[in-house]
Amino acid sequence: MALIPDNTLITATPEEGRALAIMIARKTIGAIQPDAEVRGELRPAYANDADSLTAAGHVVAIEFATVAAANNYWRG
Amino acid sequence: MALIPDNTLITATPEEGRALAIMIARKTIGAIQPDAEVRGELRPAYANDADSLTAAGHVVAIEFATVAAANNYWRG
Amino acid sequence: MALIPDNTLITATPEEGRALAIMIARKTIGAIQPDAEVRGELRPAYANDADSLTAAGHVVAIEFATVAAANNYWRG
Amino acid sequence: MALIPDNTLITATPEEGRALAIMIARKTIGAIQPDAEVRGELRPAYANDADSLTAAGHVVAIEFATVAAANNYWRG
Amino acid sequence: MALIPDNTLITATPEEGRALAIMIARKTIGAIQPDAEVRGELRPAYANDADSLTAAGHVVAIEFATVAAANNYWRG
Amino acid sequence: MALIPDNTLITATPEEGRALAIMIARKTIGAIQPDAEVRGELRPAYANDADSLTAAGHVVAIEFATVAAANNYWRG
Repeated sequence: MALIPDNTLITATPEEGRALAIMIARKTIGAIQPDAEVRGELRPAYANDADSLTAAGHVVAIEFATVAAANNYWRG
Repeated sequence: MALIPDNTLITATPEEGRALAIMIARKTIGAIQPDAEVRGELRPAYANDADSLTAAGHVVAIEFATVAAANNYWRG
Repeated sequence: MALIPDNTLITATPEEGRALAIMIARKTIGAIQPDAEVRGELRPAYANDADSLTAAGHVVAIEFATVAAANNYWRG
Repeated sequence: MALIPDNTLITATPEEGRALAIMIARKTIGAIQPDAEVRGELRPAYANDADSLTAAGHVVAIEFATVAAANNYWRG
Repeated sequence: MALIPDNTLITATPEEGRALAIMIARKTIGAIQPDAEVRGELRPAYANDADSLTAAGHVVAIEFATVAAANNYWRG
Repeated sequence: MALIPDNTLITATPEEGRALAIMIARKTIGAIQPDAEVRGELRPAYANDADSLTAAGHVVAIEFATVAAANNYWRG
């Protein structure tokens, strides 16, 4: 199983970097709970709870901070 | 769907950077829960709960840390 | 509405930087819940709950990390 | 009211820096809930709840990260 | 007991760095609750709760930020 | 009471740095709740709750980020 898609933090754009941050966050959930059926059962309640959504967005924000730093914030 | 509006973290001012941080946080919630109707139904309870508001502000603070670093803190 | 008072992260002193961090955190709550009456109604419960106060202080700590970095920690 | 004691993040030692981090965290709680009597009433429950203590320690950890960076980690 | 496997934060790839972040997070839980039987009993409930999974992923994100910085984001 | 054992963030190895991070986190809990008997009473419930353990591990992750930065990630 790949925890980091394409095994790199480098992306061409901020948009791709954000998508990578979301994927990285999801892959780790998959590593902790490898049963896709269980994850699927958890999804409805979680995707319909504002605090759960905020918590998920929080993790993406942290992953994105790392990806953005890796890419020198795509400044150039 | 655009996760990062205008596909850049660079803004002219701190004010614009903060607005971007808020938008980035919201776009990710939209990516996790793409159904706008569901998001709309969640909003009243969440916007009227102090802890939910604090949690949302927490995420914006983290996004802003990234945007501010990307802009060298608009030091001039 | 101003999300970042005076549109700068630069302050003369750590004390002013901390006050700015508190203000920035509050302005974002105001952006998410623009109804001042609702915010006023939420305040008593929140200001009398230890965990809510800790959560609010947590957000200020993160905002301050950004403001302090912007000011090179006022190292002088 | 002073939010940052002595209006500086610079301390002679890590020990003093950690004490400063604790004080900074407390001063902000005092700014949000200025009524010392209320804070005193909240303390027993909070100081006897493991999760509340962990949450308070969490905030101190973030404040300390800022103070430590300000002092170049007292490397010299 | 080793808290940091191989006693280094340096890894050859982002994938290995992410796996290290997960291991570091787990080793610390093991240090706080050394009884493997207790940890095993806690696992089913935790691995079937969306918010618990998000919280665990959150910790991994923070550990990974450190590992990624240690490796200069494997830019080279 | 020492908040930072040996009054330094510098350690010889990542393993020692991680152990320091755990100790720093604990010392602050001790500063907030100085009664060792109370802390001892809180421990069983907390060490047997997955979310409490994750929250404690979260704080250690943040302390470790600071210790690791202080040591330039023990790169050399």
